[in-house]
Amino acid sequence: MKRFFRYLKLSFFALPLLAAQQDKPLRVIFFGDSITQAGVRPGGYIVKLGEMLEKQNLKSKYELIGAGIGGNKIYDLYLRMEDDVLSKKPDVVIIYIGVNDVWHKASHGTGTDPDKFVKFYEAILKKLQAANIRVALCTPAAIGERTDFSNQQDGDLNQYSQMIRNLAKKNGLPLIDLRKAFLDYNLKNNPNNEEKNILTTDRVHLNEVGNQFVADEMWKVLKGM
Amino acid sequence: MKRFFRYLKLSFFALPLLAAQQDKPLRVIFFGDSITQAGVRPGGYIVKLGEMLEKQNLKSKYELIGAGIGGNKIYDLYLRMEDDVLSKKPDVVIIYIGVNDVWHKASHGTGTDPDKFVKFYEAILKKLQAANIRVALCTPAAIGERTDFSNQQDGDLNQYSQMIRNLAKKNGLPLIDLRKAFLDYNLKNNPNNEEKNILTTDRVHLNEVGNQFVADEMWKVLKGM
Amino acid sequence: MKRFFRYLKLSFFALPLLAAQQDKPLRVIFFGDSITQAGVRPGGYIVKLGEMLEKQNLKSKYELIGAGIGGNKIYDLYLRMEDDVLSKKPDVVIIYIGVNDVWHKASHGTGTDPDKFVKFYEAILKKLQAANIRVALCTPAAIGERTDFSNQQDGDLNQYSQMIRNLAKKNGLPLIDLRKAFLDYNLKNNPNNEEKNILTTDRVHLNEVGNQFVADEMWKVLKGM
Amino acid sequence: MKRFFRYLKLSFFALPLLAAQQDKPLRVIFFGDSITQAGVRPGGYIVKLGEMLEKQNLKSKYELIGAGIGGNKIYDLYLRMEDDVLSKKPDVVIIYIGVNDVWHKASHGTGTDPDKFVKFYEAILKKLQAANIRVALCTPAAIGERTDFSNQQDGDLNQYSQMIRNLAKKNGLPLIDLRKAFLDYNLKNNPNNEEKNILTTDRVHLNEVGNQFVADEMWKVLKGM
Repeated sequence: MKRFFRYLKLSFFALPLLAAQQDKPLRVIFFGDSITQAGVRPGGYIVKLGEMLEKQNLKSKYELIGAGIGGNKIYDLYLRMEDDVLSKKPDVVIIYIGVNDVWHKASHGTGTDPDKFVKFYEAILKKLQAANIRVALCTPAAIGERTDFSNQQDGDLNQYSQMIRNLAKKNGLPLIDLRKAFLDYNLKNNPNNEEKNILTTDRVHLNEVGNQFVADEMWKVLKGM
Repeated sequence: MKRFFRYLKLSFFALPLLAAQQDKPLRVIFFGDSITQAGVRPGGYIVKLGEMLEKQNLKSKYELIGAGIGGNKIYDLYLRMEDDVLSKKPDVVIIYIGVNDVWHKASHGTGTDPDKFVKFYEAILKKLQAANIRVALCTPAAIGERTDFSNQQDGDLNQYSQMIRNLAKKNGLPLIDLRKAFLDYNLKNNPNNEEKNILTTDRVHLNEVGNQFVADEMWKVLKGM
Repeated sequence: MKRFFRYLKLSFFALPLLAAQQDKPLRVIFFGDSITQAGVRPGGYIVKLGEMLEKQNLKSKYELIGAGIGGNKIYDLYLRMEDDVLSKKPDVVIIYIGVNDVWHKASHGTGTDPDKFVKFYEAILKKLQAANIRVALCTPAAIGERTDFSNQQDGDLNQYSQMIRNLAKKNGLPLIDLRKAFLDYNLKNNPNNEEKNILTTDRVHLNEVGNQFVADEMWKVLKGM
Repeated sequence: MKRFFRYLKLSFFALPLLAAQQDKPLRVIFFGDSITQAGVRPGGYIVKLGEMLEKQNLKSKYELIGAGIGGNKIYDLYLRMEDDVLSKKPDVVIIYIGVNDVWHKASHGTGTDPDKFVKFYEAILKKLQAANIRVALCTPAAIGERTDFSNQQDGDLNQYSQMIRNLAKKNGLPLIDLRKAFLDYNLKNNPNNEEKNILTTDRVHLNEVGNQFVADEMWKVLKGM
């Protein structure tokens, strides 16, 4: 049922941004959780990226595909990478995961141990690199937007983000450091230390500003890939 | 450090039960968590199995190898199956896992979701079967020995055990139903509804009676494989 | 906000079942969590109890007051018993608590340790008895209706229910053993081992049959108090 | 058993720092968890405070009493305040609690909700103030000493510490801000961002430097009370 919905979403919202006449467009898969699942909905960050490409007359150069499923953790990505990524033969994969690995510790008792998080992340990278797919890594932006590190999961989000930064560095891969970018943005734009409604609607999922912000941050890296 | 310790354990305690002159012995790997890690220590269930074989003059027919690591969950087995199982080319693998998948929900917030437990279990079975390795599945015996289902994790242990029974049935594989066997034993031998000291020392890990009991239960199935 | 809603609820739905001309009606407070909060809504178990009283021409004998708040655990009852119970000078209090003490372990990491559950329960009983209020104790019915004890929280629910049974016995107080009653009902009426839709809508909250069932179980005890 | 051990500890280690001839010494109770329980052991922060008093010839002015029990959360303090604090008629109580309220979320599923933490804290303050006892409040120092807020519980510790700061301010009570003091110390003395061994032995409990540090921080406030 969930799978059905997902593919419906994908076939409905996936953005085959104009089949180029001569050049094959760069096929980019956004691989993640509910934040990415929402990215292909109207106003979502992947839709916004598509609009940005259109304005720059780059629409024919990129094919943007959302592959986000709500509740996914790193090992869910691992388990479905054959079906949802490798079989689609992308040129680029942008991995945006980690919120649930941390959050589900408190909400379900089924978060991911830090060392296992790294192991599965490395296993994913290994398979993507073996298929000559270029990869960019995102840090998990936020579970709560307070800027004084008093959001419940801040400690873990900082730790898991650092593990992702280390993975990017170790593997020579581009990093989209959303965690840092969100904090920097909130330090300027969240003077009352609110836990939501700056870049998120509910501490985690992106509001309109947040979707544009993520699209911008991703484009900074994607355009160079 | 942990890995080093493990291999030390294995080289020290693994039981290469006599290399048979003519017939190659059946190589059996016990693949699991701390209960199996303790199985290769003096008095452990794997050691006891070895002693049982010796008494029956079957020592030369079997090579018993412990591959248990404390704290392991189903996806840990998955992550290390290449190194610790496939590379050793066993004839038989006995999978004994599940306690930590349930227990770590409460103790670390990093248990395993039931659907992911099944997915990783299936992925392990698929790889073992692809390598023509025979497999037997164990249900997780106990986290607490009370017989009125008032041990905290009884609900989950019952659920995960049922998932393992279903996997065995679906894949036509032998089942060593330790969960059921422990309960049956306790119903007869634990009249005061104690939570430990019947088959375990601490609600989970096996005491001497428990190690012998597991060895017996395993032998019932192993001798037919 | 939550408190406002609660009192609105109470003033709106509390059932001042006819001020008797000569005899003061027995004032009964139902003290609990979201299940009791829903009890004063149309179709809720407290409303149904009121209807049962009306049919038996006992309406003037009882004043039924709901004092349930969603998410409450034993220590929430303790913290608000002055405001919501003692100040209302009831003759009888029916305590129906325990689901969240168990459930919130997994869903928020903030369940109640078993020994603290008993301590706060005893503190509540002590204060009620000091005020000469008669008390009946309910066991928490269910988090999931499967009958083979494979609902995740079954172990804890069985344990906490036993603690409540012990408290009733030790203090010589009437027990409304909903946990046992629900299981007995499901063993007869849930042949497919469904986790909901027999007496609950969502594994926890009562459907129409469930509300009537709880009203019936409560009446069996209440009529004798 | 636990209680027995506790009182043994207290009678053994409590420091009746010289019964003053003429002036009654200031009776100070340290009310907390395992950190305070260890405070009365050799090298513990309460013992060190006693030694500091002796060096300053103030031994006769103070009677220092440890009332710490391992694993305690705010509501444990509430439940035992009659026995362990009020009945001893102290002049001053120093409350040092919060680590387990946060930590037990992940390790037992039985941490304390933030709003309930405040409610029980307020209930304790109310009872102490009703008995004319002066109170000082401590923030929980650390679960992990990393300085980049990447310790798992940093988010919650920051939040709960802020709640304690607010309680101190609202009630006009002195604050011993160990959380801030530990961070400041680590920023200077933990250049490698280690998670322990600066002021703690195990991320939580105090090493010798930590015990002296806490004694110093407490004295700064206690001497003015």
